[in-house]
Amino acid sequence: MKLWQKDKEVSGSVEKFTVGKDRELDQFLAEADVLGSLAHTRMLESIGLLNKEDLDAVQKGLKIIYQDIQDGKFTIEEGVEDVHSQVELQLTKHIGDAGKKIHSGRSRNDQVLVDLKLYFRSEIRNMVDNTTLLFNLLIELSETHKEKLLPGYTHLQIAMPSSFGLWFGAYAESLADDMELMLAAWKICNKNPLGSAAGYGSSFPLNRTMTTKLLGFDSMNYNVVYAQMGRGKTERILAQAMSSVAATLAKLAMDVCLFINQNFGFIKFPDELTTGSSIMPHKKNPDVFELIRSRCNKIQAMPNEIAMMTTNLPSGYHRDLQLLKESLFPAFISLNECLEMTAFMLKHITIKADILEDPKYAYLFSVDAVNEEVLNGMPFREAYKKVGLAIESGNFKAPASVKHVHEGSIGNLCNQEITDSFHAVVANFNFTKVEAAIKALVS
Amino acid sequence: MKLWQKDKEVSGSVEKFTVGKDRELDQFLAEADVLGSLAHTRMLESIGLLNKEDLDAVQKGLKIIYQDIQDGKFTIEEGVEDVHSQVELQLTKHIGDAGKKIHSGRSRNDQVLVDLKLYFRSEIRNMVDNTTLLFNLLIELSETHKEKLLPGYTHLQIAMPSSFGLWFGAYAESLADDMELMLAAWKICNKNPLGSAAGYGSSFPLNRTMTTKLLGFDSMNYNVVYAQMGRGKTERILAQAMSSVAATLAKLAMDVCLFINQNFGFIKFPDELTTGSSIMPHKKNPDVFELIRSRCNKIQAMPNEIAMMTTNLPSGYHRDLQLLKESLFPAFISLNECLEMTAFMLKHITIKADILEDPKYAYLFSVDAVNEEVLNGMPFREAYKKVGLAIESGNFKAPASVKHVHEGSIGNLCNQEITDSFHAVVANFNFTKVEAAIKALVS
Amino acid sequence: MKLWQKDKEVSGSVEKFTVGKDRELDQFLAEADVLGSLAHTRMLESIGLLNKEDLDAVQKGLKIIYQDIQDGKFTIEEGVEDVHSQVELQLTKHIGDAGKKIHSGRSRNDQVLVDLKLYFRSEIRNMVDNTTLLFNLLIELSETHKEKLLPGYTHLQIAMPSSFGLWFGAYAESLADDMELMLAAWKICNKNPLGSAAGYGSSFPLNRTMTTKLLGFDSMNYNVVYAQMGRGKTERILAQAMSSVAATLAKLAMDVCLFINQNFGFIKFPDELTTGSSIMPHKKNPDVFELIRSRCNKIQAMPNEIAMMTTNLPSGYHRDLQLLKESLFPAFISLNECLEMTAFMLKHITIKADILEDPKYAYLFSVDAVNEEVLNGMPFREAYKKVGLAIESGNFKAPASVKHVHEGSIGNLCNQEITDSFHAVVANFNFTKVEAAIKALVS
Amino acid sequence: MKLWQKDKEVSGSVEKFTVGKDRELDQFLAEADVLGSLAHTRMLESIGLLNKEDLDAVQKGLKIIYQDIQDGKFTIEEGVEDVHSQVELQLTKHIGDAGKKIHSGRSRNDQVLVDLKLYFRSEIRNMVDNTTLLFNLLIELSETHKEKLLPGYTHLQIAMPSSFGLWFGAYAESLADDMELMLAAWKICNKNPLGSAAGYGSSFPLNRTMTTKLLGFDSMNYNVVYAQMGRGKTERILAQAMSSVAATLAKLAMDVCLFINQNFGFIKFPDELTTGSSIMPHKKNPDVFELIRSRCNKIQAMPNEIAMMTTNLPSGYHRDLQLLKESLFPAFISLNECLEMTAFMLKHITIKADILEDPKYAYLFSVDAVNEEVLNGMPFREAYKKVGLAIESGNFKAPASVKHVHEGSIGNLCNQEITDSFHAVVANFNFTKVEAAIKALVS
Repeated sequence: MKLWQKDKEVSGSVEKFTVGKDRELDQFLAEADVLGSLAHTRMLESIGLLNKEDLDAVQKGLKIIYQDIQDGKFTIEEGVEDVHSQVELQLTKHIGDAGKKIHSGRSRNDQVLVDLKLYFRSEIRNMVDNTTLLFNLLIELSETHKEKLLPGYTHLQIAMPSSFGLWFGAYAESLADDMELMLAAWKICNKNPLGSAAGYGSSFPLNRTMTTKLLGFDSMNYNVVYAQMGRGKTERILAQAMSSVAATLAKLAMDVCLFINQNFGFIKFPDELTTGSSIMPHKKNPDVFELIRSRCNKIQAMPNEIAMMTTNLPSGYHRDLQLLKESLFPAFISLNECLEMTAFMLKHITIKADILEDPKYAYLFSVDAVNEEVLNGMPFREAYKKVGLAIESGNFKAPASVKHVHEGSIGNLCNQEITDSFHAVVANFNFTKVEAAIKALVS
Repeated sequence: MKLWQKDKEVSGSVEKFTVGKDRELDQFLAEADVLGSLAHTRMLESIGLLNKEDLDAVQKGLKIIYQDIQDGKFTIEEGVEDVHSQVELQLTKHIGDAGKKIHSGRSRNDQVLVDLKLYFRSEIRNMVDNTTLLFNLLIELSETHKEKLLPGYTHLQIAMPSSFGLWFGAYAESLADDMELMLAAWKICNKNPLGSAAGYGSSFPLNRTMTTKLLGFDSMNYNVVYAQMGRGKTERILAQAMSSVAATLAKLAMDVCLFINQNFGFIKFPDELTTGSSIMPHKKNPDVFELIRSRCNKIQAMPNEIAMMTTNLPSGYHRDLQLLKESLFPAFISLNECLEMTAFMLKHITIKADILEDPKYAYLFSVDAVNEEVLNGMPFREAYKKVGLAIESGNFKAPASVKHVHEGSIGNLCNQEITDSFHAVVANFNFTKVEAAIKALVS
Repeated sequence: MKLWQKDKEVSGSVEKFTVGKDRELDQFLAEADVLGSLAHTRMLESIGLLNKEDLDAVQKGLKIIYQDIQDGKFTIEEGVEDVHSQVELQLTKHIGDAGKKIHSGRSRNDQVLVDLKLYFRSEIRNMVDNTTLLFNLLIELSETHKEKLLPGYTHLQIAMPSSFGLWFGAYAESLADDMELMLAAWKICNKNPLGSAAGYGSSFPLNRTMTTKLLGFDSMNYNVVYAQMGRGKTERILAQAMSSVAATLAKLAMDVCLFINQNFGFIKFPDELTTGSSIMPHKKNPDVFELIRSRCNKIQAMPNEIAMMTTNLPSGYHRDLQLLKESLFPAFISLNECLEMTAFMLKHITIKADILEDPKYAYLFSVDAVNEEVLNGMPFREAYKKVGLAIESGNFKAPASVKHVHEGSIGNLCNQEITDSFHAVVANFNFTKVEAAIKALVS
Repeated sequence: MKLWQKDKEVSGSVEKFTVGKDRELDQFLAEADVLGSLAHTRMLESIGLLNKEDLDAVQKGLKIIYQDIQDGKFTIEEGVEDVHSQVELQLTKHIGDAGKKIHSGRSRNDQVLVDLKLYFRSEIRNMVDNTTLLFNLLIELSETHKEKLLPGYTHLQIAMPSSFGLWFGAYAESLADDMELMLAAWKICNKNPLGSAAGYGSSFPLNRTMTTKLLGFDSMNYNVVYAQMGRGKTERILAQAMSSVAATLAKLAMDVCLFINQNFGFIKFPDELTTGSSIMPHKKNPDVFELIRSRCNKIQAMPNEIAMMTTNLPSGYHRDLQLLKESLFPAFISLNECLEMTAFMLKHITIKADILEDPKYAYLFSVDAVNEEVLNGMPFREAYKKVGLAIESGNFKAPASVKHVHEGSIGNLCNQEITDSFHAVVANFNFTKVEAAIKALVS
C-alpha cells in the first residue's frame, strides 16, 4: 500500500530499492506521526475541512494508536511502505473510512517534515538529559578529586602542575559550551513546517498558527519553500550539535586511554570493566573508552556526510533526503549510549595517589618557583635566571605546595560558576512547555 | 627573535617549517593582540605585578601601535616569528625595556587564545552585518516580485505553483536560521580564556574577572584546562556556523545556475555580470554564482577539516593547532565576499514575465483544482477523480488565479514575521556592549 | 563465551556496549574465518604444532562448517561474542577438544585481519563484476544511440553539440578509470597479514609463506607491525576506491534527474520504474536515481569517516577499529545494488528523438560553422566575424550535419579502445588464481 | 586581456571575484602550458591548420618562454587573467600575430585539462622521489636499530616485545603500499585530454594520437565528454593517493610525539631540532612532528573537500572546478616538505638503550614463555597455566632473549623483500619515458 500507487505496478526491485530501510527507521517516527495527525485534524475541523463527528472518531482512533506505540505494540507491517501508511491503515481499521480523511491539506512532504522535527525534539531532550547527568558527575568528581595533582602536558611534554579537579571540570565546562550548539539546533527544530504541503503551500485556508500552538512549537517555518529547505539542513545542524558533544567525549576517552596506559598510570578501572589476559596481569584494556572514542569520531564525521548528500541539490524536495534517517537515527542511540557509558565508567574510576612524587615530574614547578620569587619582589629575568641555575646545578627545590588562586585554577575551580552557566543554557530549552502541549494533545 | 629561543640555534629548515605562514596570518591578529595586552597590563598593575609608571608607558605605547594597525602601518618583520613578538618589539622601541614586562602572568598559549577570540568576534560581526544586508535585500526582492509565479519542483519534476516571492523569501528565512548557529558560535567565542597561561593556570593572583570586563567578554572560560581545550573547538564551531550560511548561499547559487540555464530561462543578469561568447549569443555563463557555490562548498568542508586536524589529540596544547589559522582566516574573507557578491548580483536580477504561460506547466494547478472542488463541497476522492478525468481527456482548465492564503504561502508570505524573527536573533549579539568595551580600552 | 574471558565477569552493560553489532556483522566474515583456519592449521601441522590426526579432524570439521555457511545454515548464537568464537564452538561440537587447538600461533588480531582481507577480496570481485556488467551496457547504449544528438552544456549553458553516444560512453570510460583505483585497493588487500599475531609477531616458527600461498595471496604484509597497521588503512583505501565508482554513478544519476526533468525532457523511463501522480500526469519522479545519487554520496563520505575514526591513533591495535565494519560492510551491499539498479534502469531508457530541432539549440553549431569556414581556407578571425554577423542578423544557418571525426568525438567514439582499456585493467585482478587457491583449500 | 572578453566590460568586482587566485596559482602551470602548446601546434601543422613557417616561429617562441620559465623569469602580469593569456601575450611579443594562432582547435577547457595533467605528473614524480628517499632511510634505520627492543602496545597497553627494526620497517612498508595508490593516480593522470575542446570535441580533424605521443602520455582520455569529466575526478583521486602517504606520516608523527614524551622516553632529538624552555630542561617539544601530523591531517581532509566541491554537479564544465587548484597546489608543496622534514628529523633520532629493562615491561615476554614451553612439548593450556601461576606468585622469568624467526618478525625483518616490493611498484611509473618525450618536445 503506497499513497502514490499508480495503476501500473512499480517493479518489485524498484520498490525494494526505494523503500530501503524505511520500515525499520520509520518506527522511530510513529509517535511523532500520530501527534502531527492529532494536531492537523483538529486544525482541519476548525477550517471546515473535517466535520466534528469525523474529528472525534479520528482523535479517538489516533489516541488508541498513540497508546499502542507507547506500549510497544505498533509495528510497520510487511508490505506497508512507511509510517504514514501504517498509521492510516490502523486508523481505518479502528474507525473506518473516516481514517482516510487525515491526509487532506497536507502532503507526505510536510508530514515527514513535522514528524522529524517532533522526533528530533524528543531526541534532543534525551541527549540534554544524559549530558546533564554526565555534567553533574564530572563536577562531583572534580570536587572530590580536587586535591589530586597530575602533570599537565603541552606538546605532550611534561609542563605544569594540573589536577584531577581541573581535568574533570574541564570536560564539564566543555559540555556546557556544547549545549549552546545543541540549543541552536533545538531552536531550529522547534519550528513548525506543517502546512507547507509539498513545499509550495496549499490552496486550502490552513491555520498553521493553530497547529504550531497545538504541537508546542515556538514558532513556524513561515515560508513554505523554506520549510521544505529545512529538510537536510535541520539534520545537518543537529548533527553538528551532536558532533560537538561527541568531540568532547572522544577527547575525554583519548585522555583516559593515555592515563590508563602503564607509562602514565594515573587512573584505573575495576577489572570487570576492562578486558585483559591472565598471563599479562597488568593489561587492562580500556575497550569501552576506545569504542566511545570511535563511535564519537563516527558522529563527528556525520555532519560532513549529510552535507555531502545534500549539497548542490537545487531547492525543492528530492528523494535523496530519505537516506539521512539512516545516518541520524542510529546516531541518537549511539551518542546517548556513549554519554551513559562514560558516566557509568567514570563512577568507577580510581585515581593514583601522589602521582607527582615521581622524580620525572620534578620540573613541573619551575615556573611556580620563578613566580614565587617575583611575588617576593625579584625582577622576572633575575628570578628566571636563579631558578634556571638551580635546575642546572641540581639544586632546584619545588615549592612546598601549589598556590593557584585565580579564577578557574587548581585552587579555585569555579565549579559553581560552571554549573550555573550549564544550567543557564539548559534552562533555555523549553522542555516543559513542549511537554505540556503534547500532553494536552494526547489526553 | 623567538620568545622560547634557546642557546643552541634551531636549525634553519626547522624554523622555516615551524613558522610556516604565521607571519602572514598573524597580521590579522595584530589588533586583537594589542587589545589583549592593554587589558592584561591594566590587570597586572591592579595586582601589583606592574607599577603605575610602567603601566602608563605600556598603555601609551600599545595605543600608538593600535593606531598604526588601524592605519595599515603595522607589519610583522622578516625574522620576527609571530605577532606577539612583533608587538613586543615595537613596544620596546617605543618605551624601552618596560615593554618586555607585558608577558608576566601569561603564556603565548593564552595570549593567542584571547587574540583568536577577539578576532573571531570582529569577524562574526562582519559576517552578521553582511548577512543582514543580504537578508534585507532578499526580503525586498521577495516583496517586489511576489506576484511573479514560477513552477515549483519536487524530484526536479514540475509539481506545484511557486513564486519569486516565495523563492527569495525562503533564502531570507534560511539566513535567519543560520544566524542561530552563528549566535551559538558567538556565545562560545565571547568568553575570556586569558589567564589560563599554558593551559594550567598561574601561581600569580591574576584577576581574570577584570580582564573579562575590560575586553567586553560576556563571561570567561573558567576552567583553565578547558580554556586551552577551546582551541580547535572554537574554530570548529565557528566553521560550522559559517558552513550553515555557506550552505544557504550554495543552494541559492545552484538554483540561480539552473534558473539561468536556457531550458529553464526564468532569470537573467546583465551581460556585464556574466561571461559569454559573441558567436554563442545566448550563452550567459553565471561564473559568479558557480564560484560562490564552489567557495561555499569549500567552506562546508571546513568543519570536517578542522575536526580531522584536532580529533584524537589528548588534552593540552599541541602545535597542530597553529595550522587552523590557515583554514579559517581566509574563509572569513571568502564568505564575506560571497555574501557581498550574492547581494551585488541579485540587485541586478531580471525575472522573466509570465513563465507559467508555457503549456508544459499546465498541470501545475491540478492540485489546486481538486482543492477548489473540495472547498465547494465535493468529497476529496470524487474531486480527485473529476480532475484526473479532465486531465486525461484534455479538458483540464487551471484555476484562474492562485489563491494561497495561509501563513507562508504565495499569497501570504509573512515576510514581516520572518524579518522580525531575523532581527530577534541578531539582537542577541551584543555588539554594542563589545564595541563600548573596546572603545574604552583604546581611548 | 569470550576468548579473553577473565574470572571476574565483565559487567553486562559493558559487554553489550563492546560487542555492539559484531554478531550481526561477523556473519559476513564466517566464510573467510573458516578459510583462514583451514590454511593456518595446515601450516601449524607443517611446523609440528599440530599432529596429523588433529589436523585431519580439524580440516574435516572446518569443511563441514564451510559447507554450512554456503548453505546459509551458520549463525552466530546469542551469547557468543564473535565469528571466531562461533567457529571454534561449532568445530568443537564436531570434533571435540581438538577444535580448540586452531588458535595456536595466532591472535584474534591477525585472525580478523586475514578474515577482512579475504572478505574484501570477494567483495571487490563482486563490485568488479557488477561494474563490468554496467560498463558493457553503457558501451552498448553508446553504440545504439550514437546518432542521437543532445545539447552539450558548459556552465550549464547550452554550448556545443553532444550525443548520447558520447554521454553513455563517457560514463563507461569513467568506470574504466575507477577500476584503476579498485585495482590498487585489490593489490593492498591481496597480501597476507596472518602470522602477525597481536601485531608483534610470534615466537613460534610460523611459515607465513605457506599460508600466503594456501590462501592465494599475491604476497604478504611482511612486517608484523605493518600488518596490524593495515587495519583501518585497508578499509580507507578500499572505501576510496568505492567512492570513485560511487562518484561516477552519482554524476550519472544527477544527469538523469536533469535530463528527465520536463524543461530538458531528453529521456524517459517506463511508468512502472518511476513514481508519480494521476492528477499530475507529466510527473515521473526518478526516485531510483535520486536514491542512487544519495547512496553514492554517502559512500563518497565514507573514506573521510574512516579517516576520522583512525587518524591520530598511534601504532598498535585499538578497539576503535572494530566499528569500521559498520561503515564498510553495508556499503558493499549498497554499492552493488546501485550498480545493479543503474544497469536495470538504463536498460529501459527511452531517448527523445530530434532533440536539437528545438530552436533554443540553434547556436550550438556556431563554432562548427566557424571551423567549416576555416577548413575551407578562411582565416579564423574572419570566419569568426562572418558567423558572428550572420547570428546577429538572424541569418545564421547551422551546418547540415555534425562532422566530428577525431578520436573520442561524436563521429568516432573509440568505444573499442575504451573497452580494451577497461578489460586491460580488469585483467590485472587475478581472480582465477585466487579462486583456484580457495577451491583447493576447501576441497 | 581575457580570451572571452565581450564588448561590454565585465564589472570590476566581478572580474576580481572570478579571477581569484588564478594569477598566483597558474604560475605553477606555466611550464605545462608551454609544453601543451608545443605539442598542439605541431599537430595543427600536421593537419594543415598551421603552415610550416608559422609553426617554426611558434615553436621557437615557445621554447624561449619555456627557458624563461626554467630561469624563473616568467610571471603572469597584473591585468592578465591567466597563464594561457600570458603565454599568448609573450609569444605575440616574440613572434607577432602568428602567436595568436595557437588557440585553433582547442578551448581553454582542454588547455587547462592538459596543463593540469602535465603538472600533476611532475608533482607525482616529486612525491615519489621524496617518498623513495624516506623509504630508503626507514629501511636503513630499521637495519641499524634492529636489535633495539621496545614494548609493543595493543589498546595502548603494554603487550608484546617489539623492536625499532620493526617500527621503522613498518612505516617503510606502509609507504610501499601507499605507492600503489599513487600509481593508480599516475595512471589516471597519464592520459591525454587535449583535443576534447570545450568538452564536446571539435569539428577540426585533430590528431589526438599525435599529441598523446608527443607529450609522453600512455594513452588518452578517449571520450571527449569523459575528458572533461576527468576534471575534479583526477584531482580527487590524486588527493586520495596523497592522503594515503599523509596518513602514514601522520601516524609516524603521532608515534614520535608519544615516544618522545617523558613517560615513554624511547627516543630523542637534538636540542636544535626541538623547542623548549631553559627552566624546564626536560621539555623537548616535537613541534616539527606536531606540524607534520597537522599538515598531513589537513591533506587527509582534502579528498573530502574536493568531493564536496564537485559532487552533484551534472556533466560538463562548471567554473566551480577552478577553485580546486587552491586546495591541491599548496598541498603538493606541503606533502613534499613533510616527506623531507620527516627524513631530516629521523636522520637525527637517538634511541634509548635497554628500554625493556624497566620492570614495568616484565610481562611483555609472558606469551613467549608459554610458547617456549609448548615448543618443548608441553600442551598449550598446561603451559599457559604454568606461566600464569609463575606470574601470580612473582616467580616469572622472562626468556633470555627474543627468538622470533618467522617472516616479518623481530628476528627476520624481511627488509629486502619490502625493498623489492617498493621498487617493483615504483618501477611502474614510467618516468623515463615521460622525461624523454618532454625533452624531445623542448629541444
